[in-house]
Amino acid sequence: MSQATQSVEQWGCFELRLTGSAEGNPFLDTTLSVEFTLGSRVISVDGFYDGDGVYKARFMPEIQGLWKYQTVSNRSELHGHTGTCTCVRPGTGNHGPVRVVDPYHFAYADGTPYHPVGTTCYVWSLQGDELERQTLETLKLAPFNKLRFCVFPKRFIFNQGEPPSYPFPGEVRGTPAIVFSLRPNPNPPPDFWDFSRFNPAYFQHLEQRVGDLQALGIEADLILFHPYDFGAWGFDRMPPEVNDRYLRYIVARLAAYRNVWWSFANEYELLFERTVNDWDHYFQLVQQTDPYGHPRSIHNIKDFYDHRKPWVTHCSVQHSDTARAVEWQRQYGKPVVIDECGYEGNINMSWGDLSPQEMVQRFWLGFANGCYIGHGETYWNPEEVLWWSKGGTLRGESVARIAFLREVIEAAPGAGIVPLSPLRFDAMNSMAEVLAAFEASDDAAAIVGGFAFSILAGGHSGTDYYLFYMGPHQPSFQEYDLPTGSFRIDVLDTWEMTVTCVAENASGHVRVTLPTRPYQAIRIVRQE
Amino acid sequence: MSQATQSVEQWGCFELRLTGSAEGNPFLDTTLSVEFTLGSRVISVDGFYDGDGVYKARFMPEIQGLWKYQTVSNRSELHGHTGTCTCVRPGTGNHGPVRVVDPYHFAYADGTPYHPVGTTCYVWSLQGDELERQTLETLKLAPFNKLRFCVFPKRFIFNQGEPPSYPFPGEVRGTPAIVFSLRPNPNPPPDFWDFSRFNPAYFQHLEQRVGDLQALGIEADLILFHPYDFGAWGFDRMPPEVNDRYLRYIVARLAAYRNVWWSFANEYELLFERTVNDWDHYFQLVQQTDPYGHPRSIHNIKDFYDHRKPWVTHCSVQHSDTARAVEWQRQYGKPVVIDECGYEGNINMSWGDLSPQEMVQRFWLGFANGCYIGHGETYWNPEEVLWWSKGGTLRGESVARIAFLREVIEAAPGAGIVPLSPLRFDAMNSMAEVLAAFEASDDAAAIVGGFAFSILAGGHSGTDYYLFYMGPHQPSFQEYDLPTGSFRIDVLDTWEMTVTCVAENASGHVRVTLPTRPYQAIRIVRQE
Repeated sequence: MSQATQSVEQWGCFELRLTGSAEGNPFLDTTLSVEFTLGSRVISVDGFYDGDGVYKARFMPEIQGLWKYQTVSNRSELHGHTGTCTCVRPGTGNHGPVRVVDPYHFAYADGTPYHPVGTTCYVWSLQGDELERQTLETLKLAPFNKLRFCVFPKRFIFNQGEPPSYPFPGEVRGTPAIVFSLRPNPNPPPDFWDFSRFNPAYFQHLEQRVGDLQALGIEADLILFHPYDFGAWGFDRMPPEVNDRYLRYIVARLAAYRNVWWSFANEYELLFERTVNDWDHYFQLVQQTDPYGHPRSIHNIKDFYDHRKPWVTHCSVQHSDTARAVEWQRQYGKPVVIDECGYEGNINMSWGDLSPQEMVQRFWLGFANGCYIGHGETYWNPEEVLWWSKGGTLRGESVARIAFLREVIEAAPGAGIVPLSPLRFDAMNSMAEVLAAFEASDDAAAIVGGFAFSILAGGHSGTDYYLFYMGPHQPSFQEYDLPTGSFRIDVLDTWEMTVTCVAENASGHVRVTLPTRPYQAIRIVRQE
Repeated sequence: MSQATQSVEQWGCFELRLTGSAEGNPFLDTTLSVEFTLGSRVISVDGFYDGDGVYKARFMPEIQGLWKYQTVSNRSELHGHTGTCTCVRPGTGNHGPVRVVDPYHFAYADGTPYHPVGTTCYVWSLQGDELERQTLETLKLAPFNKLRFCVFPKRFIFNQGEPPSYPFPGEVRGTPAIVFSLRPNPNPPPDFWDFSRFNPAYFQHLEQRVGDLQALGIEADLILFHPYDFGAWGFDRMPPEVNDRYLRYIVARLAAYRNVWWSFANEYELLFERTVNDWDHYFQLVQQTDPYGHPRSIHNIKDFYDHRKPWVTHCSVQHSDTARAVEWQRQYGKPVVIDECGYEGNINMSWGDLSPQEMVQRFWLGFANGCYIGHGETYWNPEEVLWWSKGGTLRGESVARIAFLREVIEAAPGAGIVPLSPLRFDAMNSMAEVLAAFEASDDAAAIVGGFAFSILAGGHSGTDYYLFYMGPHQPSFQEYDLPTGSFRIDVLDTWEMTVTCVAENASGHVRVTLPTRPYQAIRIVRQE
């Protein structure tokens, strides 16, 4: 049997649909994989059971041309199907999946630089269509190009209801007394799930939302495990073989979505029963089964996972001191994304009550050092619909400033900004190191040399572009010795979102006049 | 020969004046000391040559009663003078010298708590009478009870003129090219000073200013050595025997002023030629010759001196992260005074361009943790009279907020605030430590327990008083489990300088409503 040739755009999703038997437990009993071939290139993808006797396999072609496929299964009705699909040029807005480049930055597969400007709505896709549509409407106008959210439902403050459906067949019985605690929960999972099967409808809905994000140009940073269960459903404590089967299933279903990222956990240390070996194993399993190498990381509450391990593509970090991102960039040799630095909001949690000024400052401290910071929002409201957990609408004042920052960063040349950290006096250990840093300063560092380094974060791209951020500093002037050439100098008010050109065709020693006001940045761009 | 009995108040300054020969070099050739006796107590003080054949010795009696004295000298006309002085009760506003107590706090000798709220005017006393009087007028209305300043003149940006007089006889020849550099200066001192003598008029003027501060209730934190010479005068590179003679001379002249503190250096590491042994020696020399044990410390640019050494009374620190003061309190076991955390101002230096909000935040982060922070101001003006260097007038917005903070701290019971640092999540190294801190939390810590620790700095005094500061956090509410008893709860807006009582006679579990605004603090005070 074969099907007619279908057309799919490069980095689009080709879906092969087969029908077979629903008898027994197809999740356990049926194997299905599909080999896609173009010339000497063979990509084997796992299929999955989608319920009601329907089996599917998805493929994201990365090369244009005529791909042939054939199916392999232990069930005769699924075995030996062949066909072709034609991969054509990508449509508008389709730049392909995001990859690490440079080695501290990201780009889409077509080479377009990608600077992650993320936000978090942990369980936005489990809120029902009305609220989920509102979230998508909000995202349409927001500056975010990455969204972190969970596969599993979440039980936590301001989010204590039941989701519309569950990832496994079964029915919740009883209402457990929820105790939010940082202490380990010694109980086994409840016995009301059939962990040997999945609920396809649950994952179909998830896929729909991943596709909705893709249409908006937003990467879906999927959190595969999280600890916010507190005895409600036990999805944080499933048997090891279920965890593995779940990972294979979600990779089979979702890897062909070009905007997917794999975040192995949120606050992984709070999943007390897992060892580092378990996490290593999950990483390796997904690395081996995802044919496309989507970005992989894992998010801490306190102690970082060792991001030097080869299966980690970038550092996903929780930390409030975003100025330190540049240290971790050097330590781990990979891009640093502080996905959680705290939330603009006003709840009674130290991580969820930042002023918008503080949030914007945390963004600039990271971005001006060539790292990436994620947003979140936790303004209390009587409906208890907090963006951080459920999505909905954005109420804060940082969002507009983050949009301004994104424009600034995207206007910088190259893949991303190179930090100027040698002159970060505060981060140094001794006067000897300070003096050594002065001696060792290169062209880029030299222009902020001498005593006049009010910058808190600063970066460059070779000798064509410099960006300095001053945070709570408010100098009325700064002086620079420019490299050879001619430069435009702009003063950026990162809070007021203004760009003021203060010099054109500047060269040599320049004095830049500034308002006596915090949250200023200086941008110096070569003009010829 | 004897003089008539004079009366001096406790902790006042008794001065014995003798005339003798001005021949030869009295600074080198003449020895003079005076033994003061009351009962079994004998205090020997060094005299000093004050020029024009006048020799003096000063004594600060610490016990009321009739003190007898007799002089000892290698010159017959100065030897064997006897007399008495009656030490009477201290006058209004005279609480005696400041001592370390508790062990992290300070008190005057009469037991009155002393919370250092300092500022810096490095060479205010070398600016001529008009400006010096203006500085004193400003201080009269300011909240500061400690002033850091230098004995020696200073050459640095915004302060490049010559002082009205010099500490040694001689005349400046030529105008050296001043290069402000963090690199060692290899040159010897210029040859135009007679380092074998002092200029008494220079020190008389210094004493007058120390006395002026005493009258205003302000401690004089005298900086004995500093590196801001840059080849101008060479006071940063005098021969070792001159350094020692200078220290003996200034102790002989000034130790009897009850408001004197000894700061052995500003940014001691920049005095590149000195070793740690040299600093140890200076400390010990002053410790041995100052009969009253005035506070002794030394100020860093980067690497702290080892404040655990027994001759250090308290930690004088330069650091921008004032939240860390509490770490050093524990590390060194002594009070921590961050005398320099940056300056409110707008010059082109990262240490001199802080917004007033940032300065006030740095103050609260230290004080609410039971440590002490110092102020400074560097607003550029056409006259180039910057408070930090020359004094004059205060232009900033932090001063009024510091006055408010001082009132809050002085209204707290006990010698000072005990930090609640176990719950400073950010400062912890691992989740294990976080969990251990929860387990170990005492009564005081427990009231900020659970997840709800938005505090950045917090302290208590037993179970009667709690103070929490939230900085850039803006929770709309906080919840506490109060200890047994009945409490008043105030919300303090540290920027707007308001105190709002939000509960009277509160007990048990309480919810405190807050404005969604940064820079708030919560104070909980026992009412019965």
